[in-house]
Amino acid sequence: MQAEIITIGDEILIGQIVDTNSAFISKALNKIGVSVYQITSVQDDKAHILEALKNANSRSQLVLLTGGLGPTKDDITKHTLCEYFGDSLIENKGVLEHIEFLFKKYLTTPISDMNRLQALVPSRAEVLHNAYGTAPGIWMENEGTVFVSMPGVPFEMKGLMENEVIPKVRGQFKRPHILHKTLMTYGMGESAIAEKIADWENELPKTIKLAYLPSLGRVRLRLSTTGTDKEALTAAIDAEVKKLYPLIGDIIYGEEEDQSIEASVAKLLTDKKYTLSTAESFTGGKISSSLTALPGASKYFKGTLVSYATATKIETLGVPEALVSQCSVVSAEVACAMATNVKELLHTDFAIATTGNAGPEKGDSQAPIGTVFIAIATPKGTFAQQFTMGNHRERIVQKSVNKAFELLQKEIINF
Amino acid sequence: MQAEIITIGDEILIGQIVDTNSAFISKALNKIGVSVYQITSVQDDKAHILEALKNANSRSQLVLLTGGLGPTKDDITKHTLCEYFGDSLIENKGVLEHIEFLFKKYLTTPISDMNRLQALVPSRAEVLHNAYGTAPGIWMENEGTVFVSMPGVPFEMKGLMENEVIPKVRGQFKRPHILHKTLMTYGMGESAIAEKIADWENELPKTIKLAYLPSLGRVRLRLSTTGTDKEALTAAIDAEVKKLYPLIGDIIYGEEEDQSIEASVAKLLTDKKYTLSTAESFTGGKISSSLTALPGASKYFKGTLVSYATATKIETLGVPEALVSQCSVVSAEVACAMATNVKELLHTDFAIATTGNAGPEKGDSQAPIGTVFIAIATPKGTFAQQFTMGNHRERIVQKSVNKAFELLQKEIINF
Repeated sequence: MQAEIITIGDEILIGQIVDTNSAFISKALNKIGVSVYQITSVQDDKAHILEALKNANSRSQLVLLTGGLGPTKDDITKHTLCEYFGDSLIENKGVLEHIEFLFKKYLTTPISDMNRLQALVPSRAEVLHNAYGTAPGIWMENEGTVFVSMPGVPFEMKGLMENEVIPKVRGQFKRPHILHKTLMTYGMGESAIAEKIADWENELPKTIKLAYLPSLGRVRLRLSTTGTDKEALTAAIDAEVKKLYPLIGDIIYGEEEDQSIEASVAKLLTDKKYTLSTAESFTGGKISSSLTALPGASKYFKGTLVSYATATKIETLGVPEALVSQCSVVSAEVACAMATNVKELLHTDFAIATTGNAGPEKGDSQAPIGTVFIAIATPKGTFAQQFTMGNHRERIVQKSVNKAFELLQKEIINF
Repeated sequence: MQAEIITIGDEILIGQIVDTNSAFISKALNKIGVSVYQITSVQDDKAHILEALKNANSRSQLVLLTGGLGPTKDDITKHTLCEYFGDSLIENKGVLEHIEFLFKKYLTTPISDMNRLQALVPSRAEVLHNAYGTAPGIWMENEGTVFVSMPGVPFEMKGLMENEVIPKVRGQFKRPHILHKTLMTYGMGESAIAEKIADWENELPKTIKLAYLPSLGRVRLRLSTTGTDKEALTAAIDAEVKKLYPLIGDIIYGEEEDQSIEASVAKLLTDKKYTLSTAESFTGGKISSSLTALPGASKYFKGTLVSYATATKIETLGVPEALVSQCSVVSAEVACAMATNVKELLHTDFAIATTGNAGPEKGDSQAPIGTVFIAIATPKGTFAQQFTMGNHRERIVQKSVNKAFELLQKEIINF
């Protein structure tokens, strides 16, 4: 059982947008045992789409398309599907009623003929209800291969996948189990890990695949296997994971697939009923907004002081001016004062503070670009650590945000 | 002149990572007149990669590959290229020296045999210097088609593209001009715009392509054209854009490709020498971190108070407790107090404040999920507006951040 994804739109091929739909669809399919063989992004061009449909048809039993379903002239997927299937468009009453309902309920502009055109679907298609938009999903079959067309707007596509496509795929296709386990490690490079676990890796059963996924100071090790007996698969993977711990247990910080470090910090704080505040300089509120992006943040998160200007650190956060002039604004001392003060100011159990230079120019300190201090205040006291994070602004910020969560996580666990 | 991109890695096809490399490469190629015909993502599988190479070879003169160049066992691109070209790997002295240099300068772990393996390149390949990592870029030619292989780590790939690949492509290929112009609009849906400009669209010259790109309350209209005479192309596009303004000039807020609204606000503030602070509740520091992500933010940005908890709004931001209990914490009054107070506290010319309910559960107010108030404080006074932003947490936050910038932009322009 194998699937393919075709994403349609010039905007992808000129790099105007990043195709995030494919990753979402792949993950959702993978979870139910459908392996994605290939993702193909093609232009808004009928001949090209037809070619992609033909190729996918010859290889896979399920082909998912996104994009090109809007009401405007550049959206041609529906017409191309009709050509591919030798079909023609007819008006679907249910879709038309839904379009009229959406316009009545949510939109101030009157419904137009162009909006009504979205109720046209291929006559042999099964319509999939798009709760969040006017373009319906379309499900068509050709010689044992199913074609599903969805709008390219991520929000609408996600709704269609969850509510319509996944349940139908589950019902219609026989699928094996696909099992992944990802170990998240930090503090050691890809090759160094590979050497430490070389013997283990050489003796891995052929049915288990290992991948190294490095990113920003972390390496994720992913074990994958496929088969029919879910329990046997789980046991096989667990047995291998168990053997890994004596080798690299010291650098493994988590096991859950998809668990970001902020999610694991959020869970710890919520479970242990601790509260948190942050005082951020060059990270600009990124630590704070990473946490509040997750539901339930109000349970533990009180607030943040982004003291971007030195004056703000002094006046609002109460960092002594003498400390700044004596130690420099990018220093362990200032980081500690920021963490201690924001913790007091917002009455929290823990606090994170950051100060550093993310470049591209030097600011109010002579610290080289990439120099970063992260302070953690706990109920027991405050400490700061210095890091050198390279010379790329975006990476300096993101690596520091990750590092701050890592430091905090250790403190909470050991508290 | 046409290119293709092949991204290699199981992590893409199981949805573990989003392929951002393709958009970066597409944009960079597009800028120098190279059109990307197709993007193909394939698994870490030799037969599959070989098939993708063959197909791309038959269609395009330039094929760019990313991924599968790491030192570990799952990285197979180099071996597959050798098989495709009937070549074999040899050690490259320059690459080996660079690997040794990187380990000496930046890494604490000793260099290993596995690291040294990265100096192996196909004997007929031209090596492209990877300043940021140990895996070199590879440039190979086959019957008039150039194959370029780059590591999948975005940071390293970007360096290779900018410093090596783009200059070489410029030198080696004859390219037409590709011209895009994007008009950014807000406040009107895709179909409504399409109807307003239907006559204009019907009379567009065949050489100019129009695309509608909707996202979060905005629609971007992109005009594209290709040819040899850059001046004539520019004139043709400009003439069409000029005709658009009488039709929808009231909803166009910018013309520059790629200019995010925060970048345009940042430019306005810097140019006019105004300063800004923010007081954020449910946006959690996202307005702040969007601005500080851009270089030069210290010129105008003073700081932020993320008052996530109601107590923080009262104690730290000085919002009167009576106001909160009288009007609710999600209200125009509280938003205005937050904006006015943070502006005073941090001594800035302008300030943004947000308060609202992003869900999934209701917080300290009875306001329905999606209810949002955004306040703007200017040197002349403060006002707030109410919005309903749907019921999807991530979208509520992002739409509100966009809306806040939009409101601020108008105020600065009209001040």
